[in-house]
Amino acid sequence: MAKYSNFQLYDIVTGGDEEELLNLNEVTLQGWVKTNRDNGSIGFVEFNDGTYFKNIQLVYNKDSEDYEVLSKLKTGSAITVTGKVVFTPENKQPFEISANKCVLEGDVEDDYPLQKKRHSFEFLRDIAHIRPRANTFQAIFRVRNALSFAIHEFFQQRGFIYVHTPLITTNDGEGAGNVFDVTTHDTKDPYSFYNHKVNLTVTGQLHVEPFALSFKDVYTFGPAFRAEHSNTVRHASEFWMVEPEMAFCDLSDNMDVIEDCVKYCIEYVERACPEEMNFFNTMIDKTLLERLHHVLNSKFERMEYTKGIEILQKAVQNGHKFENNDIFWGMDLQSEHERYLTEEIVKGPLFLINYPKDIKAFYMRLNDDGKTVAACDLLVPAVGELVGGSQREERYELLKAKMEALGNDKELDWYLDTRRYGGCKHSGFGIGFDRLLMYVTGMQNIRDVQPYPRTFNSIKY
Amino acid sequence: MAKYSNFQLYDIVTGGDEEELLNLNEVTLQGWVKTNRDNGSIGFVEFNDGTYFKNIQLVYNKDSEDYEVLSKLKTGSAITVTGKVVFTPENKQPFEISANKCVLEGDVEDDYPLQKKRHSFEFLRDIAHIRPRANTFQAIFRVRNALSFAIHEFFQQRGFIYVHTPLITTNDGEGAGNVFDVTTHDTKDPYSFYNHKVNLTVTGQLHVEPFALSFKDVYTFGPAFRAEHSNTVRHASEFWMVEPEMAFCDLSDNMDVIEDCVKYCIEYVERACPEEMNFFNTMIDKTLLERLHHVLNSKFERMEYTKGIEILQKAVQNGHKFENNDIFWGMDLQSEHERYLTEEIVKGPLFLINYPKDIKAFYMRLNDDGKTVAACDLLVPAVGELVGGSQREERYELLKAKMEALGNDKELDWYLDTRRYGGCKHSGFGIGFDRLLMYVTGMQNIRDVQPYPRTFNSIKY
Repeated sequence: MAKYSNFQLYDIVTGGDEEELLNLNEVTLQGWVKTNRDNGSIGFVEFNDGTYFKNIQLVYNKDSEDYEVLSKLKTGSAITVTGKVVFTPENKQPFEISANKCVLEGDVEDDYPLQKKRHSFEFLRDIAHIRPRANTFQAIFRVRNALSFAIHEFFQQRGFIYVHTPLITTNDGEGAGNVFDVTTHDTKDPYSFYNHKVNLTVTGQLHVEPFALSFKDVYTFGPAFRAEHSNTVRHASEFWMVEPEMAFCDLSDNMDVIEDCVKYCIEYVERACPEEMNFFNTMIDKTLLERLHHVLNSKFERMEYTKGIEILQKAVQNGHKFENNDIFWGMDLQSEHERYLTEEIVKGPLFLINYPKDIKAFYMRLNDDGKTVAACDLLVPAVGELVGGSQREERYELLKAKMEALGNDKELDWYLDTRRYGGCKHSGFGIGFDRLLMYVTGMQNIRDVQPYPRTFNSIKY
Repeated sequence: MAKYSNFQLYDIVTGGDEEELLNLNEVTLQGWVKTNRDNGSIGFVEFNDGTYFKNIQLVYNKDSEDYEVLSKLKTGSAITVTGKVVFTPENKQPFEISANKCVLEGDVEDDYPLQKKRHSFEFLRDIAHIRPRANTFQAIFRVRNALSFAIHEFFQQRGFIYVHTPLITTNDGEGAGNVFDVTTHDTKDPYSFYNHKVNLTVTGQLHVEPFALSFKDVYTFGPAFRAEHSNTVRHASEFWMVEPEMAFCDLSDNMDVIEDCVKYCIEYVERACPEEMNFFNTMIDKTLLERLHHVLNSKFERMEYTKGIEILQKAVQNGHKFENNDIFWGMDLQSEHERYLTEEIVKGPLFLINYPKDIKAFYMRLNDDGKTVAACDLLVPAVGELVGGSQREERYELLKAKMEALGNDKELDWYLDTRRYGGCKHSGFGIGFDRLLMYVTGMQNIRDVQPYPRTFNSIKY
């Protein structure tokens, strides 16, 4: 009466190892009932234990020892079932279980919200503790797991050191404001715990740079926070970020790593989760796989921001209508502009590089033209910006002047220090992990790719 | 003029692939100067780029093209150096670089705090942005990286799904208080962002249980926070936790996984970081490797809490002196008691199981005796508690009564829901990742294993 998981049974049956197949005469499974229909003489349970995307069909009839239990199973109930594997090569599923014994481990009350019918994503968001059992979310969270491991494996294979940068910090990163404060119940001084005003981090980059200047290649992969009052499908107040940082690395080297990383992630996820990716391609976005394969087969192009502006201006002159047609050098591009460049012009992934210094962060390296900084944004069709990176300003005097103007030179004196003590050329980038997951699954709302999304005005759980 | 890292050069030289060796006639390295001594006719630079624990020796003399640059290099400076690999099989290091060209990429100002002499850990804590360059911290953070990946690999190989549980939450986990609040600058209502009082999580367990009841085997690996006013060497206010959770798993199965996991981590780290582990064994704790090997070769014993109390009482009767000699059933064991049991009695790793219900968390499963819960703490020599786990209370009525008494049944109604909707036997455990790292390295202070430690009254960076 050996126990098997969904994954193991599919693996053995499709692998076809004869010795293992012989053991399948009596197997025990533990998991949950998706559906149950009993038409009197024969009954069918769609069963899954969460270890594999495909269900297993349990078949029972009046001869089954626990017919009474089996025939009354409700959607969602937890069971231990024992039976015989019956091969059904002519059917969609290569095998089913002829169920004999069944123990009801956990029953389901009648108000169970996940019924057989199709539920809207909005409805499911309200039951974040139940929705991981729904097909779409089985797929999403299994791909989320695979994508996380892909990130780690990519950087580990290249010798990068994973650094846990702190989440409670005294600085606000790029100085954009919109931070969450971290306080305690001390009514006299909510910041008394650390004797210092502290907030949740918006980026691990400043903290990880000193590690790049010690270990050469490093990365963070952890949560970051923004208290932005925006209610869009792409903004969450808590999200996960990947932030690699590399010493002796310029903007061009940086883009090579970004390109390799994005391609590695796509390949990994397709290999690790083929059923899930087919599901997304069928149910969520019918162009998904085609789009991802196109990325895999493209050499990512590189274009100057200045050139991008010229192209956009020409498009407007030729009658193209953007929501915002006021295109000028120095502007921050909107998603529609980014998408025009990547979808209409290069028809594939595009690095836009060397942005005006005034629209980018203080730590980016000033180019020789005195007007632009060595930044690169990776733009991809259907989404726009996917990754942002830059070469960092390693020249002490230039960086100090910028930080003095911004007023963060005192608070970040340790960061400035790294430019006085054996600093060197270095670069890095940031990937919004949740947005990368949206990109590889085709999901349109960040609330549907996070286990328990935290967004403006909305928290539960 | 191909570029090589420290790691690559050691790998090629010790691997001895002839074709690759032939390429080493002219190599370029980029990294930092550890020391430089020039005795007039010949000079030696200890060089490292952070990719491998061992330094590389650069040798130069007046014939070197950039003798002027090389002879003036200061500790800490960043350089690009080109030279020839010279094999020195008779020396401690199997090769050195006969340096010819050298570019000073980043000079070092005279107040550089990391000089050749040995610095105290206390001193280094105050320069968290520089200490990753020191030998000990090169070793610590490389082992931290390896241990992190070991955790992921262990669970991924077993099919566990990695879940990013949220850090901002409305509950305080086990209800121990001591949480950090998350607020914004809204003077009318600091909680207006979410329209709800929120705090930083103390555990991901409650959030990950619904995923175990969907995917069977899952784990978290992320930050957790405690606003405890304790200034010990083992307490940090921000730390990383690993929290696996398994459906259809009882306390005994749970302990099997804990034992496998701890052994896997030790084996992985020794294999991935042999130089670093030898360093710790030589410089930090001369019994470290012996202790770790003993754990690898032990079958972890299991002992009832009640039995443990009897043994401790007998020890006191026989004249053993604890700081606290008042041993009684129902007490929370202190570290000295735990260490006595694991070091003196079983002389190896020990699971103490079935603790009095009043000293354990509300979600632990009540045993049939009505007095104890199905908890397990893994105790190890030299440290005491390393891992804590339990079987969870899956019975709705019992759990509800406990939570009503605690007053968290309304806030956590969704958690209770999981017991009404196909709940089942399940178990899990928690590993304080930083403490596990202290254990495998022999480091005594949690401040010395975290990149930027956050402890009571202390924050910088």
